[in-house]
Amino acid sequence: MKPDRIRILDRATVMRCLAGIDPVSVVESAVCEHTLGRSDLPAEGYMAWENSAGAYSRAVAMLGCVQQGRSMAYGIKLINASVTNPALGIERAGGFTVLFDPETARPVTLVEAGHVSALRTAAYTMSSLRTLGPTDFDAVSIIGCGTIAAMHAKLLVQYFRAVRELHLYDIDPARTAALRRDLATHCPDVKVTEHPDVESCVKASQVVVTLTVSSEPYIPPGWFAPGTFIAHVSLDDVMPAVFLEAEAIYVDDIDLVRDNPRRVLGSVMQAGDVVADTESSSGHGHALARRYGEVLLGREEAIRPQDGLVVSNPFGMAILDVAVCQEVAVRAEVAGLGTVVDLMGDPERADR
Amino acid sequence: MKPDRIRILDRATVMRCLAGIDPVSVVESAVCEHTLGRSDLPAEGYMAWENSAGAYSRAVAMLGCVQQGRSMAYGIKLINASVTNPALGIERAGGFTVLFDPETARPVTLVEAGHVSALRTAAYTMSSLRTLGPTDFDAVSIIGCGTIAAMHAKLLVQYFRAVRELHLYDIDPARTAALRRDLATHCPDVKVTEHPDVESCVKASQVVVTLTVSSEPYIPPGWFAPGTFIAHVSLDDVMPAVFLEAEAIYVDDIDLVRDNPRRVLGSVMQAGDVVADTESSSGHGHALARRYGEVLLGREEAIRPQDGLVVSNPFGMAILDVAVCQEVAVRAEVAGLGTVVDLMGDPERADR
Repeated sequence: MKPDRIRILDRATVMRCLAGIDPVSVVESAVCEHTLGRSDLPAEGYMAWENSAGAYSRAVAMLGCVQQGRSMAYGIKLINASVTNPALGIERAGGFTVLFDPETARPVTLVEAGHVSALRTAAYTMSSLRTLGPTDFDAVSIIGCGTIAAMHAKLLVQYFRAVRELHLYDIDPARTAALRRDLATHCPDVKVTEHPDVESCVKASQVVVTLTVSSEPYIPPGWFAPGTFIAHVSLDDVMPAVFLEAEAIYVDDIDLVRDNPRRVLGSVMQAGDVVADTESSSGHGHALARRYGEVLLGREEAIRPQDGLVVSNPFGMAILDVAVCQEVAVRAEVAGLGTVVDLMGDPERADR
Repeated sequence: MKPDRIRILDRATVMRCLAGIDPVSVVESAVCEHTLGRSDLPAEGYMAWENSAGAYSRAVAMLGCVQQGRSMAYGIKLINASVTNPALGIERAGGFTVLFDPETARPVTLVEAGHVSALRTAAYTMSSLRTLGPTDFDAVSIIGCGTIAAMHAKLLVQYFRAVRELHLYDIDPARTAALRRDLATHCPDVKVTEHPDVESCVKASQVVVTLTVSSEPYIPPGWFAPGTFIAHVSLDDVMPAVFLEAEAIYVDDIDLVRDNPRRVLGSVMQAGDVVADTESSSGHGHALARRYGEVLLGREEAIRPQDGLVVSNPFGMAILDVAVCQEVAVRAEVAGLGTVVDLMGDPERADR
């Protein structure tokens, strides 16, 4: 029996491998390849249940592949979550991304999912902010102060040296305070302001990033200062009118956004109030959902906020996780990092 | 950061844990719970591509949960395959089944998939043969002599002491010969007959098991001896007329079979020539697809072959893998077997 080896990379190892990787360029490359059609994003698997505390728990399994350099990267992201996890002292969501050998289809690398998931999400925000944000800004408002917010803050400071102030709001003031303490340690040069209400936080700067677990829109267009860029990462924070009045709306994938009417932009698109830039009816008085990849590819001019609002509304694509994990896996293999397990095992240990 | 531990069980360890487990009773229990509605089988994820040899390669990810004892077992079966794998000296399909903590949804056990998959498939065949097969038989015909056939032969000899002869056929005579040699070593008391053509193998006994990779039906009803039980495991071997003339047809799940018209019984059902036992039109001159679980639960009487044919056509349910793996996982944990990895890792090793 030939061995069937899989390399397991825990979060600490993943972070070590990421040291030499620019996640923003990996994400931008994957978005471009996806826009060029060199990717596949099959329908995701989804299973939900209630745990013994009656809390919503779920498993999501997303297969995907994307061109990376001269070959395709194939994999699956398994990201499970339970609402009661934070009360147990663990992150709400957890799981792993698995990469497949393109020749044999065998799973060959298993990568802790949470860190890469937060990183690729923040990297997409950095990319869109760089390309579509105000040409000049020194402050960012962060709505929702959990794990992904911490990652955003870290990358904001790293990629935008001009940022001198972060405005924070969370429905739970303890989380805001915790992120503030974290930032005081890691970015002592940045001024951090905690806001007692979401409206004042939204109004405080011309770059607003939503990173909540909201399922009901609550931010009206009037709260935003003229010329604001909104990274609507958590997908259910801004009200429909924000999209209708926006100077531009950018998405990662038209179908993913439109086919999910439980999210605000999906419902607005299904109602016909925002149409895809690919549709023939485009431009006849309707707001357009534009593919961000077209801008990255240089095929469309970037629309930055002038007097109004520009909204980036990325649904989130598992191929971004696959792409980042593939870069991590290459480095781990070269450096001999991770735990390698032969899934066939030692036949001497089998009793029958 | 709290640890996030996952236990990895390779095939050798799985086999060791299985020593004290009766796979047939685990499978029967899962089929019963499924029939009682105490299960969930979400739509599977599927991604296909061609490898560099132009060969069909695919990933299939199947979430599922099923009642097991007093709790539910949750998990996902990832089973990938490439047509060129056997030429590389590895099994065509491979992957793993992952079990989730019902409380946190975290992946907690990862089990090599191939062995359990073959075992649960063979265990279902043993169960159906015991319940629906001829009351008296001493020979079995096996069509297709790969990995799953070897598992079937092993369980046949173990569960049916009366079996004195196995008839083998494979489109590749080398595989037939290899299985014959394997059986000569492991079951020296059983007579093994290699057949040069599939028809003579089908005709040789009143129990026929199809374990091929056929995608085109080729066995007409006339080849079967009167009073034959057919375990149509590979789903595309018997021609539509076999179903139309059968004394009874049994399936594991009506929807799975009917919703897959690429398989022969699915296409026959979509054409309306075989109807589900649950449908109101049942019994009006149409052949019926019956749920095997109803027989196991004692709610329907078993129909064994008399002068005609009885066909068992199990689509294959990932919850059977989840159920068997759950039993394996419990034993592995008690015995401290497997490789335990903390997916968070040691933060001291993270450079940033």
